[in-house]
Amino acid sequence: MSRDPIPLGMVGGGQGAFIGGVHRIAVRLDGAFRLVAGALSSTPEKSRASGAELGLDPGRVYDDYRQMASREARRKDGIRAVAIVTPNHMHAAPAIEFLKRGIHVICDKPLTATLAEAKRLAKVAAASPALFVLTHNYTGYPLIRQARAMVARGDLGRIRLVEVEYLQDWMTRAVEAQGSKQAEWRTDPGRAGAGGALGDIGTHAWNLAAFVAGAEPQAVSADLTSFVPGRTLDDNAHVMLRYADGARGTMLISQVAAGEENGLRLRLYGDKAGISWSQESPDRLWFAPYGEARRLITRNGPAADEAARRVSRTPGGHPEGYLEAFATIYTEAARAIRAREAGEEIPAGVLFPTLADGLSGLRFVAACVRSSRANGAWVTP
Amino acid sequence: MSRDPIPLGMVGGGQGAFIGGVHRIAVRLDGAFRLVAGALSSTPEKSRASGAELGLDPGRVYDDYRQMASREARRKDGIRAVAIVTPNHMHAAPAIEFLKRGIHVICDKPLTATLAEAKRLAKVAAASPALFVLTHNYTGYPLIRQARAMVARGDLGRIRLVEVEYLQDWMTRAVEAQGSKQAEWRTDPGRAGAGGALGDIGTHAWNLAAFVAGAEPQAVSADLTSFVPGRTLDDNAHVMLRYADGARGTMLISQVAAGEENGLRLRLYGDKAGISWSQESPDRLWFAPYGEARRLITRNGPAADEAARRVSRTPGGHPEGYLEAFATIYTEAARAIRAREAGEEIPAGVLFPTLADGLSGLRFVAACVRSSRANGAWVTP
Amino acid sequence: MSRDPIPLGMVGGGQGAFIGGVHRIAVRLDGAFRLVAGALSSTPEKSRASGAELGLDPGRVYDDYRQMASREARRKDGIRAVAIVTPNHMHAAPAIEFLKRGIHVICDKPLTATLAEAKRLAKVAAASPALFVLTHNYTGYPLIRQARAMVARGDLGRIRLVEVEYLQDWMTRAVEAQGSKQAEWRTDPGRAGAGGALGDIGTHAWNLAAFVAGAEPQAVSADLTSFVPGRTLDDNAHVMLRYADGARGTMLISQVAAGEENGLRLRLYGDKAGISWSQESPDRLWFAPYGEARRLITRNGPAADEAARRVSRTPGGHPEGYLEAFATIYTEAARAIRAREAGEEIPAGVLFPTLADGLSGLRFVAACVRSSRANGAWVTP
Amino acid sequence: MSRDPIPLGMVGGGQGAFIGGVHRIAVRLDGAFRLVAGALSSTPEKSRASGAELGLDPGRVYDDYRQMASREARRKDGIRAVAIVTPNHMHAAPAIEFLKRGIHVICDKPLTATLAEAKRLAKVAAASPALFVLTHNYTGYPLIRQARAMVARGDLGRIRLVEVEYLQDWMTRAVEAQGSKQAEWRTDPGRAGAGGALGDIGTHAWNLAAFVAGAEPQAVSADLTSFVPGRTLDDNAHVMLRYADGARGTMLISQVAAGEENGLRLRLYGDKAGISWSQESPDRLWFAPYGEARRLITRNGPAADEAARRVSRTPGGHPEGYLEAFATIYTEAARAIRAREAGEEIPAGVLFPTLADGLSGLRFVAACVRSSRANGAWVTP
Repeated sequence: MSRDPIPLGMVGGGQGAFIGGVHRIAVRLDGAFRLVAGALSSTPEKSRASGAELGLDPGRVYDDYRQMASREARRKDGIRAVAIVTPNHMHAAPAIEFLKRGIHVICDKPLTATLAEAKRLAKVAAASPALFVLTHNYTGYPLIRQARAMVARGDLGRIRLVEVEYLQDWMTRAVEAQGSKQAEWRTDPGRAGAGGALGDIGTHAWNLAAFVAGAEPQAVSADLTSFVPGRTLDDNAHVMLRYADGARGTMLISQVAAGEENGLRLRLYGDKAGISWSQESPDRLWFAPYGEARRLITRNGPAADEAARRVSRTPGGHPEGYLEAFATIYTEAARAIRAREAGEEIPAGVLFPTLADGLSGLRFVAACVRSSRANGAWVTP
Repeated sequence: MSRDPIPLGMVGGGQGAFIGGVHRIAVRLDGAFRLVAGALSSTPEKSRASGAELGLDPGRVYDDYRQMASREARRKDGIRAVAIVTPNHMHAAPAIEFLKRGIHVICDKPLTATLAEAKRLAKVAAASPALFVLTHNYTGYPLIRQARAMVARGDLGRIRLVEVEYLQDWMTRAVEAQGSKQAEWRTDPGRAGAGGALGDIGTHAWNLAAFVAGAEPQAVSADLTSFVPGRTLDDNAHVMLRYADGARGTMLISQVAAGEENGLRLRLYGDKAGISWSQESPDRLWFAPYGEARRLITRNGPAADEAARRVSRTPGGHPEGYLEAFATIYTEAARAIRAREAGEEIPAGVLFPTLADGLSGLRFVAACVRSSRANGAWVTP
Repeated sequence: MSRDPIPLGMVGGGQGAFIGGVHRIAVRLDGAFRLVAGALSSTPEKSRASGAELGLDPGRVYDDYRQMASREARRKDGIRAVAIVTPNHMHAAPAIEFLKRGIHVICDKPLTATLAEAKRLAKVAAASPALFVLTHNYTGYPLIRQARAMVARGDLGRIRLVEVEYLQDWMTRAVEAQGSKQAEWRTDPGRAGAGGALGDIGTHAWNLAAFVAGAEPQAVSADLTSFVPGRTLDDNAHVMLRYADGARGTMLISQVAAGEENGLRLRLYGDKAGISWSQESPDRLWFAPYGEARRLITRNGPAADEAARRVSRTPGGHPEGYLEAFATIYTEAARAIRAREAGEEIPAGVLFPTLADGLSGLRFVAACVRSSRANGAWVTP
Repeated sequence: MSRDPIPLGMVGGGQGAFIGGVHRIAVRLDGAFRLVAGALSSTPEKSRASGAELGLDPGRVYDDYRQMASREARRKDGIRAVAIVTPNHMHAAPAIEFLKRGIHVICDKPLTATLAEAKRLAKVAAASPALFVLTHNYTGYPLIRQARAMVARGDLGRIRLVEVEYLQDWMTRAVEAQGSKQAEWRTDPGRAGAGGALGDIGTHAWNLAAFVAGAEPQAVSADLTSFVPGRTLDDNAHVMLRYADGARGTMLISQVAAGEENGLRLRLYGDKAGISWSQESPDRLWFAPYGEARRLITRNGPAADEAARRVSRTPGGHPEGYLEAFATIYTEAARAIRAREAGEEIPAGVLFPTLADGLSGLRFVAACVRSSRANGAWVTP
C-alpha cells in the first residue's frame, strides 16, 4: 500500500465525547488516514477549541458538517474520507452530505436512529461512488476473523447453535440522571432510536454473530426490559434466534449486569466442533473438536490462520486489543478506498462492515421491539 | 450426629449403570448411611451378581423392589431408607412401595417420567411419615449454598436477571443408536418422559436457579430442538424466563454443544451486585458488587459464609467436587431423617431437594413442551 | 477386587486433628478399607471419646498404639493395616510396632521428623512382609498419573525444565502463637524435624516432581528463610535443581504467600512439548506441543489416557478433587495389599508412594538445610 | 500538552526488522512524536527503500546515523529526538552521536551489549542536556503502574517475596541456524553481549520487578544453561534473589519453555497482601489481602488507581495491550522532553526507564554470568 495517508475529516468527537477519541487513536495507529479537518461539535466555539486541541489547521475546523463538506470538496487537498462519530440520530444527514460529494464515509454504529433514515441513507449511498464503512469494530479482532474462516471452511461442521451475549453494567443505576452525557442520549428515544441497550450494543452482537456464522437469523423472539425506573428504552434484552437452515441461537444483551465491563462473548456449536471467544480476552479462541481435547488458538500463535495473521501486528503473547481491532477497520477501509479510487476490485480478504450491515442492525432492533410488544412472537427482521 | 449409619437399600444401580455407582460413593463418603440391601436390577440374576460385587449379604439382595420392600419392612434391622436410581419411568412405583411402609426415599431426578405419575406419588408421600429426598445434587455445592445465602440476605439487592445454562456434548451424535445405554433410555419418551435434555439436565438447571434465586419463574417461553436425526425428544432447549417480581432470565440447555463436558453455569445480577458460578470450577464464586472490584470467594476460604462452611470438609484450596456435593445431599438427608425419626423439627440450615422440587421440575418440562409447541408462547409452569 | 474391606486401625486423628479426618473420608470413599480400631490420641480419655464419636467398638479403642498393635495382632479379625496420622516425630515408633507384626502401614508424610529415624524405620520395613505406604496424596490425581505417563512415553521429548511450586499463606502471621495446633507442632523442630514449610509441603512438591518427571535432582541449591519473627524453621524456601541428565529446575515453597490457599503447581518443559498442572484445578492438564495450539486435557475427557481413567470415578466435567485423590492412594494401597497377601506381584499400573519416597523427601529436606547453611552451595540429596 | 508532535528520527528498523515496526506504531498511537527522518539500515540502499516505504521525505533518509545526526542537527526543523532500534551492540555509538548534539534518545533495550560500552555511554549522557529513555515497555502497562503504587503506599505491607518469570518458547530449537535473523544476532555474543535470554528478556524481568517492588536485589545466585546444542549464550536462567531488607525472590528466564509465548509474570507477597500479574492478560491485577477474598482489579475499572487511569485510553473491559503500553513509554518521554525543553521539572507521576535502569540491567546480566560461572555463588550486581 502506498504510504501517503488518506486525508480525513471528522464530524463530532469534540471535547467530552468518548468514541471520537477512540476513532482518532484508530486513525493514527496504522497511519492509513490522517485527520486534517473537523466539524467537531454542533457548537462552533466548541468545535474550534477541540480542533485547536487536536492541532488541526484552524482553517479546516468548521462550524458544521455542511460547511466542511462544501469547502473540503472544493479544496485540491480536501478530505477524501470523513469519520462520523455523532450520536445515532446525527449520522444520516452528514453521511448523505459527504456521500453526495463522493467523499467516503466511515460512520459509527448503529447506522442511524430510525429505519426510515437508514433507508434514505441507503439510497444515497447506492448512487454514490464513495464507500460507506460502518465501525462495527469487533469484527476487526484477528481471532474473530479466524473464527469466521473456520466456520466458512467447515471446521465446525454444520452450525447448530449460535449463543452470543453482550453484557455491561454501567447503566445499572440511573446514570443518565446523574450527569453522564453518554447515558443521556443513549436513553433518549429521539437521539438513540427505538433500541436502548439493543441499539447501543445489541447491534454489535448481532453483527458479530452474523460475521462469524456467515448467516443472519430469519426470526427473533424478544423480551425487552427497562429495569431502571424512568427509562423508556430497554436496558436488557433476551432474544431467541432461528436460522433458515434450522440452527438456533440466543442473545443476551444487558447494560445492567453488575460486574460486567464489556462482556461480549460468542459461542458456536456445530456437529463437528464448537468455538468460544470473549472480547475481554480477545487473543484467545477456544476450538473444541468433538471427541478431542479442546485447543487454545492464540492470535498469531502456532494455530492461527492467514485470516488472523494478516490483521495482526505483533507475535502471539503480545496482547492486541480493542484499539488495534478498531484500527483494523480503518486500515481495511483504507485498502478498500484505495482500490475503489484506483478503479480496482476490493482485494479478497479485505473485510469491513457496510451499510447493509447497518440496515440489518436496525431491522434487528425493530424486529426485537415488535416481537417484545407482541409478547415474544417470532418476527422476521 | 450419632454415628450409627442408617441402613439403606438401593433400587437399580446394577452392573453397567452410571448413577448408581455415584450414589454409592456419596453414601460412603460421609458414612451417614450404610448400604445393606438391594434390588439392583430388573433381572434377578443381574441383581444378585451386582449385589455380590458390592459385598452385600446375599440374603438381602432381592429379585425386585416389591420383595425388598416387604421383606426389609419385616426385619428388625431392616433398611430405614432406600435410594432409587432407576430410569425416570421407574421412580414412582418403587417410591410408593417404600413410602407406604414408612421407609424414607432418596430418589434420583427427575422425579418421574410424567406429571401424572408425579402427582400420584405426591399424594402417597403426603400421607407417609417418611421423608422424600430428590437428588438434585448440585444444590449440595458449598458455594451454591453461599450464593443462596447471599441472595437471601440481600447482598445482590433486588434480583433482575437469572441467567443459567447447562451444556453438554455427549449426545452430539446419535449415540443412542451406537450402544450407549445411557443415551438409549434418555431418548425414549416412554422411559424418559416428555423432556430429553430438558428432563435430564434442564430440571437440574431449573432447580439450581430456584434454589439460589429463592424464586421460580412464573412464565417460560421455550424453543426446543432435536438436532440429531431420529431423535424425538429435545436435545437442545432455549428458554426465556419471567419472574413474578419483574426479574427476567434465560436457560440454555443442550446435550449437543461440542466441547462442553458438564457446563452448568449460573449468573445472577441484582441492582447491587452480581454473582457467577460454574460447576466445573465449583470451589470458586465470583461476587461483583457494583462499582467495586470483583471478588473471588473460595470454598472455605476467608470470605466463605457459615452456609458454605457447614458443608465443607476440607480447607480452601483443597478441591471438593461433584461427589462431595452429592454426598452432602445424603448427609443432609440423614440429618433430616434422624430429626424426623426423633420427632424433632429438621434443624434450620439443613437443606435438601424435596418432592415439591421434583413436581416443579416436571411442571417446568411440561410448560416448555407446551410453549415450544405453541411457537414460544409464554406458559405458566 | 473382592469387596470385603480390609480392616484398618488408626493411630492419631482424634478430636481436633485435621489430617485424620481426611484419611477417614479417603478410607470410606472407595470402601476398600474399613476403620475398626484406633489409638486416636496420646490421651486415653480423648482416644475413647474420639472412638465413640466415630462409632468404633469401644473394645477396639486403645490407650496407645502399642496396646493396639499387640491386641489387634492377636485377634482373628484384627486389623490388617494401620493408618498413622500423628505429627512427624510420632510416625516411626508406631510404624515399627505394626510392621514388626506384619501389619501394613499407611503413614502420613513426611516419613519422620529426622533422617536417623527414617533409616531405622527403613530397616524394620525391609525386614517385614508388610507393605509401607506413604500418603503423598497428590500423586493420586488422575491427571498427575496422565502427566507421568506422557513424560514416560516421550510426549514431551527430553525434559529440560522442571518448575514446581507449592505456595500457601496460612502461616503469614505467627499463628503458632495464637492457638493454632496445626502451626504449633509444624514450627517446632522437635516435632516437625529440620524442615518447616520444606518438611510440611516441600516434601509433597519434591515427591510430585519426581513422580511426574521420573527422576530426582542430583543436586540442590537452597535459600531458606523464616520470615515470621520467632520462627526457627523455614517458612519459605527457594531451591534450584540440577538433574543428572542436564535438566534444570526450581522449587518455590512458601507458607507465607498471602492469597495462596494450596497452590501446588507443576510445569515441565521438554524439547518437544510442555505441560502445566495446578492442584487447585486438578481436572485440567495443559499440554503444549511445540509449534501447535495448546490443548486442555480434562480428567476422563476425550484426551485422557488409561493412566488417568483407571483412577477416575466420574466422567469429565464432574469435578474430582483432593479427597478423591487421597482415596486413590488408599485404594491403590488396598490393591497392593491384596496382591501381597495373595503372594502375587503388585499389578502393573498400581502406584503408591513408598518408604523410599519418604527417605528421599527427608534427604531433600536435609540437603536444603545444608545448602542454605552453606550459602546456597550445591548439595546432593 | 501542546499537540505539535515532536519530530523524531529512527536508527535501524528497516525492512525485515521486528522491533522497529513496533516502535513506529507506538510513535503513532498517541501522536506525541512524528517520524520524519531515518537511517534505517546499515546498507544505504535498504535504508532508502525502507524510508520510501514509510513515506519519509527522501531528503531525510540517511546513509548512516552519523550523517543523520550531523545534518538533522543543522536543520531548523530537525529532529529533536531519535529512536535507536538496532541490535544491542549498535546502541551506544549512535546514542552518543545524538546525545552530543542535544538530541533526545529513545533507545531499545538492553542498553548496550557490554557493560564497558554502557559506562562510556553513561558519561556522555550525563554531560548532555538531552534525555535518555530506555524502552522497557512493560513498565507502560497501567496495572503495572497500579501495582507499583500499591507497593509504594504499603498496601502489601512489608514485601517478603518477589517471584518473577519470563518464559518464551521461540528458541526451543536452533532457529538461529534456520534463517531467523532475530535469533541469529541474539545468540551471537558479539552482537548480543554476555547474556542470551538473560539479556533479551531477563533484563525486562529485572527492570519490571524493580519498578514494581521499588528496590533491586543486592545479590543474585544464578544457574545459566544453554540447552540447544551449539548455543554459547544462555537460553535458560534460574536466579535466586536477595534484597537488602531481607526480602527474597526468584527469576525464571527461558526461551526454550515449549508452549510459552510471552509469559512475563510477576508476583509479590508482603506481610499484608499479595499481588499477581501476567503480561498476557495485562488488564487484570490480582490483589489478595491476607484473610480476605482475592480481588480482581481491572484496568480503568472500579478499583483502578489514578496511577493506572492516567495511562489508560479506554474504559475497563476494552482491552489495551502491548502496543498501548509501548506507546505510553513514548508519550511519557514526550511529556518529559517537553518539560526539559521548557526548563521545567518533569511532572510528578511521569515515569519512564532511564539510562540508570539500563546500567542496572547490564550489571544484572554480568552478575548472573559471574555467579553461574562460580557455581551459583551469591554475587552483587
